[in-house]
Amino acid sequence: MSIPQKSRQYFLPAGRKEGYKNLTITEVEVPKLKANEVLVKVHAASLQYRDLAIANEFYGGLDGREIVPGSDMAGEVIAVGQDVTDWKAGDRVCANFSPAHLHGDPTAATMAAALGAVAPGVLTEYRAFPSESLVRIPAHFSYQQASTLPCAALTAYNALNAGDTVLVLGTGGVSIWALQLAVTSGATVIATSSSDEKLKIAEKLGAKHLINYRNTPNWEEEVLKITNGVGVDHVVEVGGQGTMHKSIKSVRMGGGVYVIGVLTHGDLPQDIFRLVLGRAAEVRGILIGSVAQFKDMVRLIEANPEKTTPVIDKVFAFEEGIAAFAHLESQKHVGKIVIQVSKD
Amino acid sequence: MSIPQKSRQYFLPAGRKEGYKNLTITEVEVPKLKANEVLVKVHAASLQYRDLAIANEFYGGLDGREIVPGSDMAGEVIAVGQDVTDWKAGDRVCANFSPAHLHGDPTAATMAAALGAVAPGVLTEYRAFPSESLVRIPAHFSYQQASTLPCAALTAYNALNAGDTVLVLGTGGVSIWALQLAVTSGATVIATSSSDEKLKIAEKLGAKHLINYRNTPNWEEEVLKITNGVGVDHVVEVGGQGTMHKSIKSVRMGGGVYVIGVLTHGDLPQDIFRLVLGRAAEVRGILIGSVAQFKDMVRLIEANPEKTTPVIDKVFAFEEGIAAFAHLESQKHVGKIVIQVSKD
Amino acid sequence: MSIPQKSRQYFLPAGRKEGYKNLTITEVEVPKLKANEVLVKVHAASLQYRDLAIANEFYGGLDGREIVPGSDMAGEVIAVGQDVTDWKAGDRVCANFSPAHLHGDPTAATMAAALGAVAPGVLTEYRAFPSESLVRIPAHFSYQQASTLPCAALTAYNALNAGDTVLVLGTGGVSIWALQLAVTSGATVIATSSSDEKLKIAEKLGAKHLINYRNTPNWEEEVLKITNGVGVDHVVEVGGQGTMHKSIKSVRMGGGVYVIGVLTHGDLPQDIFRLVLGRAAEVRGILIGSVAQFKDMVRLIEANPEKTTPVIDKVFAFEEGIAAFAHLESQKHVGKIVIQVSKD
Amino acid sequence: MSIPQKSRQYFLPAGRKEGYKNLTITEVEVPKLKANEVLVKVHAASLQYRDLAIANEFYGGLDGREIVPGSDMAGEVIAVGQDVTDWKAGDRVCANFSPAHLHGDPTAATMAAALGAVAPGVLTEYRAFPSESLVRIPAHFSYQQASTLPCAALTAYNALNAGDTVLVLGTGGVSIWALQLAVTSGATVIATSSSDEKLKIAEKLGAKHLINYRNTPNWEEEVLKITNGVGVDHVVEVGGQGTMHKSIKSVRMGGGVYVIGVLTHGDLPQDIFRLVLGRAAEVRGILIGSVAQFKDMVRLIEANPEKTTPVIDKVFAFEEGIAAFAHLESQKHVGKIVIQVSKD
Repeated sequence: MSIPQKSRQYFLPAGRKEGYKNLTITEVEVPKLKANEVLVKVHAASLQYRDLAIANEFYGGLDGREIVPGSDMAGEVIAVGQDVTDWKAGDRVCANFSPAHLHGDPTAATMAAALGAVAPGVLTEYRAFPSESLVRIPAHFSYQQASTLPCAALTAYNALNAGDTVLVLGTGGVSIWALQLAVTSGATVIATSSSDEKLKIAEKLGAKHLINYRNTPNWEEEVLKITNGVGVDHVVEVGGQGTMHKSIKSVRMGGGVYVIGVLTHGDLPQDIFRLVLGRAAEVRGILIGSVAQFKDMVRLIEANPEKTTPVIDKVFAFEEGIAAFAHLESQKHVGKIVIQVSKD
Repeated sequence: MSIPQKSRQYFLPAGRKEGYKNLTITEVEVPKLKANEVLVKVHAASLQYRDLAIANEFYGGLDGREIVPGSDMAGEVIAVGQDVTDWKAGDRVCANFSPAHLHGDPTAATMAAALGAVAPGVLTEYRAFPSESLVRIPAHFSYQQASTLPCAALTAYNALNAGDTVLVLGTGGVSIWALQLAVTSGATVIATSSSDEKLKIAEKLGAKHLINYRNTPNWEEEVLKITNGVGVDHVVEVGGQGTMHKSIKSVRMGGGVYVIGVLTHGDLPQDIFRLVLGRAAEVRGILIGSVAQFKDMVRLIEANPEKTTPVIDKVFAFEEGIAAFAHLESQKHVGKIVIQVSKD
Repeated sequence: MSIPQKSRQYFLPAGRKEGYKNLTITEVEVPKLKANEVLVKVHAASLQYRDLAIANEFYGGLDGREIVPGSDMAGEVIAVGQDVTDWKAGDRVCANFSPAHLHGDPTAATMAAALGAVAPGVLTEYRAFPSESLVRIPAHFSYQQASTLPCAALTAYNALNAGDTVLVLGTGGVSIWALQLAVTSGATVIATSSSDEKLKIAEKLGAKHLINYRNTPNWEEEVLKITNGVGVDHVVEVGGQGTMHKSIKSVRMGGGVYVIGVLTHGDLPQDIFRLVLGRAAEVRGILIGSVAQFKDMVRLIEANPEKTTPVIDKVFAFEEGIAAFAHLESQKHVGKIVIQVSKD
Repeated sequence: MSIPQKSRQYFLPAGRKEGYKNLTITEVEVPKLKANEVLVKVHAASLQYRDLAIANEFYGGLDGREIVPGSDMAGEVIAVGQDVTDWKAGDRVCANFSPAHLHGDPTAATMAAALGAVAPGVLTEYRAFPSESLVRIPAHFSYQQASTLPCAALTAYNALNAGDTVLVLGTGGVSIWALQLAVTSGATVIATSSSDEKLKIAEKLGAKHLINYRNTPNWEEEVLKITNGVGVDHVVEVGGQGTMHKSIKSVRMGGGVYVIGVLTHGDLPQDIFRLVLGRAAEVRGILIGSVAQFKDMVRLIEANPEKTTPVIDKVFAFEEGIAAFAHLESQKHVGKIVIQVSKD
């Protein structure tokens, strides 16, 4: 395939007044490859809550700058720089959320390189990535399926320590992947949702216990009942302040609450560290993961194809970007929202 | 040595009005040994902030009940129950903070068994302990020195993961032990205090960097400067809400804040979980530790005698219990406050 | 249920000439309970290769002494000693292989306490165990099923680190449990056997790749082919010297060979440590496991009932002990050989 | 500094008859930098047993090819390729033993890239390295001191798990570094040597127990005596077959023997895996380490300057290469042998 010269790309202007509704498609030059870079044709991208927060300007540290949105994509290698030996045209890849986070803990520098914020994102037809930031996608995955991996699946994977009982909150992208990967590893999963319909999907994916938190607002008590008063080994906490208090009460002594995102606002109880101390519990923030972890996760997925089929809520055409963001905002989805960027 | 019939013992009545000032000495029967128990002559006991909190009734869950205070002691085996094979008269031992916490994480049951709260404490001349709750003390330690181990040293030991840079807050019992054990393990220690005099002691014990937080109220910025903007690997956090915000800002991405106690009250910033998430940091409560960890710590201490000499602030006679608590309350101490219970 | 006075018990005399064929049933007094002991009615026992080695006197360190054989049983609590609070009549339990190995690494003392060698075994109708050596069996298991856990399953569990690809050798008790527990944890399993029939059973239990080592004597080359030349993450090695060389060649760089038993004799290649070094590989001996690990394993089994049904080859009546040992010796079994000791 | 055009370089011809005595100095072109490469002026290099094995052709897999010898160097950055942002002229660096081993376990590919075998080595005045293979040297180290780090220190660091008691065999480069790093981490070290003089040096570096294995050929019994019959937590095993049997007998149950090299030949006892199994011990090959580990080690060294001063046996001028190899071959050294390649 010859290298194209133009790439259609989504763009959010500075000084936007209407958040994601200001999304426009522009046409840009395809970048010249550095010696260590790989040019990827983006086939599919998936959205996260972070994309919405960035577009709508309640994501910190961006000061209303122009954005090329999107962090998660799967695509096909088109060309490689002169020093690249690991990849060749035709290879099917994802880029890591932060192309600079290769292994170990994140750093300020790796977070600054995260896609779709300060660094331009992936809602574009062609994009260059450093060679070492790419990961081969599971052989049996379509591009749409693979586009769900970088943030949601890797965050979930990174939050899952060994443990027998896992509580996942809601049915968003991370929670669903956490559910699937926990089941794959032999854990018992308790899932919550406000909708019985969504809980049925969770059950089908392997959740053993289901709690409708609309009917059971004190769901932490239900979690304790299910675990014979002991609590779960860990909680994949996507909500933040609104649910943190209950999450800590749901965890066993010595267990962990893994904080994935801070979606909601609200009063933070003053006794929260007393609770953490009293349970000898761990609260840990999870910032996606490294290329090394991504590769490990791909092996786990390839070994367990039947349990790790990505749950895709809806696929939008490239031109339907605003509708895709609107669907994300509505929070009606189960699993991931995908944009088909290029034709497969 | 023949088994004595009476034991002089401290006692805090229910309905006490004046907290630790209501401490009285009573005389009780020496308990009959169960098959699995060991009778210990208590030589020395050390005090912690927890003892003060219990006496003054701002420790949760006790509902003003009668208390035999004290959790930390070192003493001598006097007699053993019929099924005990591990211990014999003359052995020098500590009891674990929770005699039921043998290994692994704490549980509700192990915490309920902790000494000096619901379960009677160790400010008594003779006390029976389950055989498996006892730990041999370092051979080169006096009883006074060994009495500083159960809470302060084991908590500090338990909070110290591998890591190059450790921040300890203040110069109380846990912080001083954390400083010493971190230095023993090759870490760089940053110590804070409100007093230059106390900081000099910290320096002598091996702290490489000293911060007087009276002169430097934004000490988290100084920590970042010392660590080239990266932050420390972990913080041993004894203060709680008053300092937590700065502690989290002091830690590197992926680092940990180990919460030892919740001493002070005050406003908890609403953005605290956002901070935890933003740094991919870990906040973990530490509830002392298990018998298994205690034994490991004794080995580390015996291998490094020159660096792990307990720092004893002051020794009080058994009859001076109220004065000892008053000294603890004054927060002027560096290291541990010890009560000589019996003659050595 | 009233406490019985007599217990029928298997016995191997000193100076036995014919190994397990000298097994006889005797009648002994039911022991008086110590304060910390629990009397268990043994319902079912399972056999291992170790039992055969002990009976036939090629197990080290026993010097031809009298033996009460058997280490693995499941049974019902009949009575408890005066200080026991954890158990009550009717509870369904296994004893740990070494009743003294509660947590952490084994020691000389814990190994000396292992059942069925120096310490009397479990092929008896009633036996007393220390309270802390017992583990509740999975709620959905029969006694026969639970009797397969103490050696075979716990050894397999203990050998299974996180890892994507596991090689199990043969279809004996440990290998089958290793296969099942690895599949439960999401790993890809490669199984070997000399029989296509046995391999079909392995496949049904979840093995993804099957190698008949009779047809493929250089099976390590096949393992490398399956893993794209990389090798497996670890090998559960039950054979010892006869297969060790090939096992090390089958493992990836940085991977591990977990040595479970030393069944066979033969020449040990002189270059074996060069191989270990050249692959940065780990060779680790596994000596069953602790009570703490046993409890963890029970939780994993209860969370995954459909994948962890014990594979029982054949059940013998109590009186058929010699036939059971003969069947074990024939090595025709897949999974475990069980003796029904008492009526359920 | 301007980029030089020529580099003086050591060379071992194919078909060499006299091993290292065929070392000659040649002059080669300074390589053109790739976009991701850094040109380093080599100041000092240190030798290991591996260099001798390669020169004298008893190192496997090289088939008598031409060699540029040497794997360990410290030097100064002279120039950087167009895409390099991490380094600038004047930076003081070591290259990792395998420039391709960035983190995690080694692989066949990372081992093939190891310096001084298939890939050209560092006994040259100017050499290009991939940017990511370089590690900043401790600020207080000279180039000579830093040249001792890549193989010896990192191997030792990599072999040191947490543990209270460590046995190091002999006083070669790895053993001395293992001694120093173990002492830095608070461990008790037992050192062996055939010479009382060398043992005195070990004592000065912090070893608590000394065994002259000439006087005490059954040194494993002495190790057991020192450890009250328990054995050490781990052994840093540099000898291989000649000592392995005793090393395994020296280790506690559940402990580890870390195999660093295979220096000597000799009979390998047939019962060696029985010993490993009987002690539930771990035998692990150590192949140097990754860039990530190297950086961690530098932090540990910088935090503990007084205990980690490299032990340099002797420094040779660049032209004295053959004499340096001869000194290594004589095995009289304590610590490292260094070649001053360029003027500082």
